[in-house]
Amino acid sequence: MAKNITPRKENYSQWYLDVIAAGQLADYAPVKGCMVIRPSGFAIWEAMQSRLDRMFKETGHVNASFPLLIPKHFMEREAEHVEGFSPECAVVTHGGGKELEEPLMIRPTSETVIGHMYSQWIQSYRDLPVLINQWCNVLRWEMRTRLFLRTSEFLWQEGHTAHETAEEAQEETLRMLEIYRVFQEEYLAIPVIKGIKSESEKFPGALSTYSVEAMMQDGKALQSGTSHNLGQNFAKAFEIDFLDRNNNQKYVWTTSWGASTRMIGGLIMTHSDDDGLILPPKIAPVQVAIVPIFNNDQERSETQEFADTISNRLKEKIDQLQIKIDSSDNLRPADKFFHWIQQGVPVRIEVGPRDVKKQSAMVARRDIR
Amino acid sequence: MAKNITPRKENYSQWYLDVIAAGQLADYAPVKGCMVIRPSGFAIWEAMQSRLDRMFKETGHVNASFPLLIPKHFMEREAEHVEGFSPECAVVTHGGGKELEEPLMIRPTSETVIGHMYSQWIQSYRDLPVLINQWCNVLRWEMRTRLFLRTSEFLWQEGHTAHETAEEAQEETLRMLEIYRVFQEEYLAIPVIKGIKSESEKFPGALSTYSVEAMMQDGKALQSGTSHNLGQNFAKAFEIDFLDRNNNQKYVWTTSWGASTRMIGGLIMTHSDDDGLILPPKIAPVQVAIVPIFNNDQERSETQEFADTISNRLKEKIDQLQIKIDSSDNLRPADKFFHWIQQGVPVRIEVGPRDVKKQSAMVARRDIR
Repeated sequence: MAKNITPRKENYSQWYLDVIAAGQLADYAPVKGCMVIRPSGFAIWEAMQSRLDRMFKETGHVNASFPLLIPKHFMEREAEHVEGFSPECAVVTHGGGKELEEPLMIRPTSETVIGHMYSQWIQSYRDLPVLINQWCNVLRWEMRTRLFLRTSEFLWQEGHTAHETAEEAQEETLRMLEIYRVFQEEYLAIPVIKGIKSESEKFPGALSTYSVEAMMQDGKALQSGTSHNLGQNFAKAFEIDFLDRNNNQKYVWTTSWGASTRMIGGLIMTHSDDDGLILPPKIAPVQVAIVPIFNNDQERSETQEFADTISNRLKEKIDQLQIKIDSSDNLRPADKFFHWIQQGVPVRIEVGPRDVKKQSAMVARRDIR
Repeated sequence: MAKNITPRKENYSQWYLDVIAAGQLADYAPVKGCMVIRPSGFAIWEAMQSRLDRMFKETGHVNASFPLLIPKHFMEREAEHVEGFSPECAVVTHGGGKELEEPLMIRPTSETVIGHMYSQWIQSYRDLPVLINQWCNVLRWEMRTRLFLRTSEFLWQEGHTAHETAEEAQEETLRMLEIYRVFQEEYLAIPVIKGIKSESEKFPGALSTYSVEAMMQDGKALQSGTSHNLGQNFAKAFEIDFLDRNNNQKYVWTTSWGASTRMIGGLIMTHSDDDGLILPPKIAPVQVAIVPIFNNDQERSETQEFADTISNRLKEKIDQLQIKIDSSDNLRPADKFFHWIQQGVPVRIEVGPRDVKKQSAMVARRDIR
């Protein structure tokens, strides 16, 4: 059992924070409730992002970038939306050394500003569907924060689509929910349950909200991907209308869906143990760590060479396998093993001078340790 | 000459905006000076980002994420820095429905908050160098804005490194400047000149600032990648010190370097013509557009099939070639050609029924049209 990690049984919340600290995944930022994602944590987010992004593109979605700042009166155009998000907003009142005429809100989500742009871009049914996603940061002022799970600023993707018919919008809503399910199960190895949110829990302004939720080790459910059928609420508020196939002016039907850095929190709470992080191979930024063990320079070069050979052979077998050879000389082998265990690397290979002679190696799987 | 684009000779500024509009690259956002990057424009940024990111990683850099909001007193810790950036800052004064005790600034750049984190992460020479980059949005309040070239919010990457010695920091500063040169010349096909900025033009808080600059079609230089040797200024302001190899407490030497969505502006102004955008093949999100020409259903399926064959053969020859077959039936062929010309796609292939019989095709290069 790792000395730098509180056992789950003793204090589950502290265990969670200790795993993050030991894995050097994230720190709190100087601004209350905000987060610094360190390189080891960010590599996990990059892996998630690249796989999810591919799934979005395979279903015809494209990426774009919408602004961080939203005029206050935009937020007010959809009644439920402003009521839901106003208490969580960060407000910019000064810019360029002057007080602004109208306060600006840092986006807590972008339905309003994207709705405004869609009203300009969409004229006819030929412009539909619009299938746009963005990867960005958003801000929701939080009183009680926890790294990854609930932070005032977080990173996410928000998809925003516009459709000709109610049926298409509902299909899209469920299609993206299914992508979240597949992603969580196949890449993160997290079994999830798909479901619809109650009236009180749904997204402010949505017709209906669906989510995927998973059971964490403390027996609590964690929501980690949501998909909203927004009906015509935002279309009416932002006048997103179009000329349909019969030459009638109609409102579009919109959806939005998002997944965030919270997924990293879910990943930690699903797989990790009292020794630290455990990462599933498909999402691990490094899948194999090879540790050469040596006592002198000759052994060092022998084991290093053998480690290179193993690495090359593995890469020949498995395309795009990420391997790290830990040749640093400032840590003892046991400390290196410990490091890679706490980083959650799925497979660890140890090679000493005797292994070189026998052309064998010790292989350890992190998940069944 | 395209009717929707003002000729360069007539009005260079209007030409620039017309090329962006015709290519559907970007729009102004509802908040003054901010920008919406549309899917066609964002695909260019994604292409830039993936290639630059690979170059950064090949030189040992890793990505991380630092917070959007910076406490006001952080900005004030380096004298030149606060003087340089304060007039450009957007200030958050309210959050969660309350006035904040200390105003927060939206990052115009992240030296201060990253310096604060580095002071906690760096203890000994063994922790050095720290080679971190982040891809994010920043805000600098601008009075006169131009899409991509000068917007209040923009997307960029900012690298921030910490080193043991002055020599290493200077090497890093020049290494990253050289990466910008190579990237601009080899991927964007923009010849640049490397140089050092004058005392009055250097980054607020830097020892020295280097940049790559290119000559635009209007005879003006555009700066599109900067690399700063920050000396020990931020190390002293944020107390980033370490135990060196002789057990002495020393300040680190830091650098920072960045390139932004402004590069898209430079790309437009270097290559485009009076018909619209021209994209160099290595950065074009779509390299080949194939337009089947047909008058009836039989011709349609024949030309479509032939287009597929051409596409497959090209993909066999060139790995990762991005090809778009334009089978839409709501535009005349001439309008489709026009569309792909304005989008800047490097190669256009036209296939009609006679081409199918002759097993040939018309191929047009965008850049020598």
